[in-house]
Amino acid sequence: MRVEIITTGTELLLGEIVNTNFVYLATELNKRGFDVLYQTTVGDNPERLQAALAVAAGRADLIVLSGGLGPTQGDITKEMVAAYCHLPLYLDLETWNHIHNIFSKRQMCMTENNEKQALVPEGALILKNQVGTAPGLVVEYDQHFFVLLPGPPFELKYVCEHEFFPYLEAKFGGQGVIQSLTLKVRGLGESLVAEKLVELISKQTNPTIALYARDGGILVRLTAKAATAEKAGKLLHKLDLKVQKLLASHVYGYDDETLAAALGKVLLAKKQTIAFAESCTGGLASSLITDIPGSSEYLKGSVVTYSNEAKHNLIHVSKTSLSKYGAVSKQVACEMATGVRDLLGTDLGVSITGIAGPGGATRTKPVGLVYIAVADKEGVVCTKNLFTGLRTQIKLRSALTAIGMAYDKITGSLTDPTEEMKR
Amino acid sequence: MRVEIITTGTELLLGEIVNTNFVYLATELNKRGFDVLYQTTVGDNPERLQAALAVAAGRADLIVLSGGLGPTQGDITKEMVAAYCHLPLYLDLETWNHIHNIFSKRQMCMTENNEKQALVPEGALILKNQVGTAPGLVVEYDQHFFVLLPGPPFELKYVCEHEFFPYLEAKFGGQGVIQSLTLKVRGLGESLVAEKLVELISKQTNPTIALYARDGGILVRLTAKAATAEKAGKLLHKLDLKVQKLLASHVYGYDDETLAAALGKVLLAKKQTIAFAESCTGGLASSLITDIPGSSEYLKGSVVTYSNEAKHNLIHVSKTSLSKYGAVSKQVACEMATGVRDLLGTDLGVSITGIAGPGGATRTKPVGLVYIAVADKEGVVCTKNLFTGLRTQIKLRSALTAIGMAYDKITGSLTDPTEEMKR
Repeated sequence: MRVEIITTGTELLLGEIVNTNFVYLATELNKRGFDVLYQTTVGDNPERLQAALAVAAGRADLIVLSGGLGPTQGDITKEMVAAYCHLPLYLDLETWNHIHNIFSKRQMCMTENNEKQALVPEGALILKNQVGTAPGLVVEYDQHFFVLLPGPPFELKYVCEHEFFPYLEAKFGGQGVIQSLTLKVRGLGESLVAEKLVELISKQTNPTIALYARDGGILVRLTAKAATAEKAGKLLHKLDLKVQKLLASHVYGYDDETLAAALGKVLLAKKQTIAFAESCTGGLASSLITDIPGSSEYLKGSVVTYSNEAKHNLIHVSKTSLSKYGAVSKQVACEMATGVRDLLGTDLGVSITGIAGPGGATRTKPVGLVYIAVADKEGVVCTKNLFTGLRTQIKLRSALTAIGMAYDKITGSLTDPTEEMKR
Repeated sequence: MRVEIITTGTELLLGEIVNTNFVYLATELNKRGFDVLYQTTVGDNPERLQAALAVAAGRADLIVLSGGLGPTQGDITKEMVAAYCHLPLYLDLETWNHIHNIFSKRQMCMTENNEKQALVPEGALILKNQVGTAPGLVVEYDQHFFVLLPGPPFELKYVCEHEFFPYLEAKFGGQGVIQSLTLKVRGLGESLVAEKLVELISKQTNPTIALYARDGGILVRLTAKAATAEKAGKLLHKLDLKVQKLLASHVYGYDDETLAAALGKVLLAKKQTIAFAESCTGGLASSLITDIPGSSEYLKGSVVTYSNEAKHNLIHVSKTSLSKYGAVSKQVACEMATGVRDLLGTDLGVSITGIAGPGGATRTKPVGLVYIAVADKEGVVCTKNLFTGLRTQIKLRSALTAIGMAYDKITGSLTDPTEEMKR
């Protein structure tokens, strides 16, 4: 089955946004054994979209389009596919009701524009979209399958996972499967991970092993190809055990599991609570923690002490430390960690204070200098870090390092309080 | 001049890397007045690349290819273009010397593979590559221009800036320029914005108008084409005024300006300070605020009061309100806003309390129910919101709505304290 993906949108052709929808579709379709052979991007222009459909039909069997299903005049994908396939559009009552319900829930008026989204080419299969107004569609024509998917990434993923991929599996199952398993590793650099896995990597055939550096951690991706999901799963499991043995406790999770989720798991297991005192991260660490459902079980609260007054008034950092060592110092980090632990009465208190830049650096304290401390009933551990990158990157690296230190502390692997870490 | 960009590489079709080369080429070519009408991605496969060249020649005049100029067997772009244009390849001595010099500089042996990179289609113009081995090439054939550029992003940019763009300017100068201006809109849905702008949109020629929904707000993108940057700027300015008139205070900024940045600007201008009390957003609103350099000028601090204890102990929400109305209520939101304003001694106090889900809903309080309040010296304003989406989306929408309410409050457009907003 030859696949072409057509992404539409003038903003793509202008280079204004990155084509993440294509990356998603290509990854997921290849994973399921569908060969993506071509990708085309074309603007919201009737003639050119028509021409692109004709070209695609000449070289692919399954033509997947994303974008152009919205309510505006510029949204023409459905109309063009219907015209190409010589199919009339009719109003689909169920879709109309769905859109209507969304609008009445939001207490907003439904405009004629939105009604346009309930028009469906005759004979099309509707891929329901529970998270937006425009449904996906499958149109069969002249031995080709045209699949129309919404452009907003979140809606695209929803419709793919709940409707389109199950449809593909039911209709064209047995293309063989490609499965991946990603091990998430922290506390080791990429070359060290490569060294530990060198023998496995040099012998790799199926599954394959690939390493990627992401957000201060390393991903080890295992990819297996097999006739069935079960067989691929077995191959992955076997290799996973070998990798785990070599990387030991540095593996903290799989696939989409974040470090915050891994920390949440151990906090829940040990029935411990946590609080953050954030300066340069401005609430980001707490926000990452609270991205995890159920985090209210262990996060009692946090403070963003962005000013010296807040550091003193809220969590009792001493004025002496602030004036003698400065807000970005080991002393202040330690007092913040113990202070927020006391304030919120938690088992762990974690603090972050540093210079996210671009301003604020001094002769002795460069942008990227960040002190991170973790306090528990036994005392407080602090690390000095020098992060590189833009303001938001320094914030993210600081927050992830803090979450990682809390994880290490609670799992018993944070042992050296004098450690100076540079990234 | 109609332009098609062809990016080659199996890794692109597998979704393993994001097509940043295309984004770069599209942005730069559009800026210079060249209309990029199509983009195609095709793997390193001779037949399919040949077919893609034929399709491109049928619909574009300038065909820009990136990738496939490397030394390996999989690098076939040059060979396929030469074959398509019926041109023999010959060894270009200057290029051969250049490659040879690079290798002797690096004290590495030049392999036969690398010699392949010195082969050039007869009559091609060579675009020198001082930062890599493979030069770019321009091949003229049958009134078409095929431009071959190296795949590594750094080399691509080098060859474009030093050779390809100057060549374009000299050969096809005076294509004019394309400029864009994006107006950022809040407080109106996409179809309502479309309705307000319907007359401008239906009459659009130059500049064009396009709408996009992003993170709970709407983008209105104006794109002008003109002979000079100055003329394009004037066209944009004229249309900008018309749009502003129709959308009034709903426009809060331009281009990359975030709502947090817009809020920061007005806080600075009015010399006011702010603090947040966050429950369901868990620190996200404060984190967005602190993404803006210089935000320490107006954000004194924030509290993440994730538990009832924290709400009571830190910002003095009354136990009565918590037990009588629950943590997710108008009463608690108002007490949080005034409480954090008092605690941190700021001009504005902003609070967010709601149910981010997936758990935590009750019979009367669904997932997505979020109360947001803004307190200042005159009192406190609260809105009741019902957001849809996943946990992280509800968090983001809540945080952005809170920032937007603070913006409206300080600019004087938040007037109705009983307003119930649903999204």
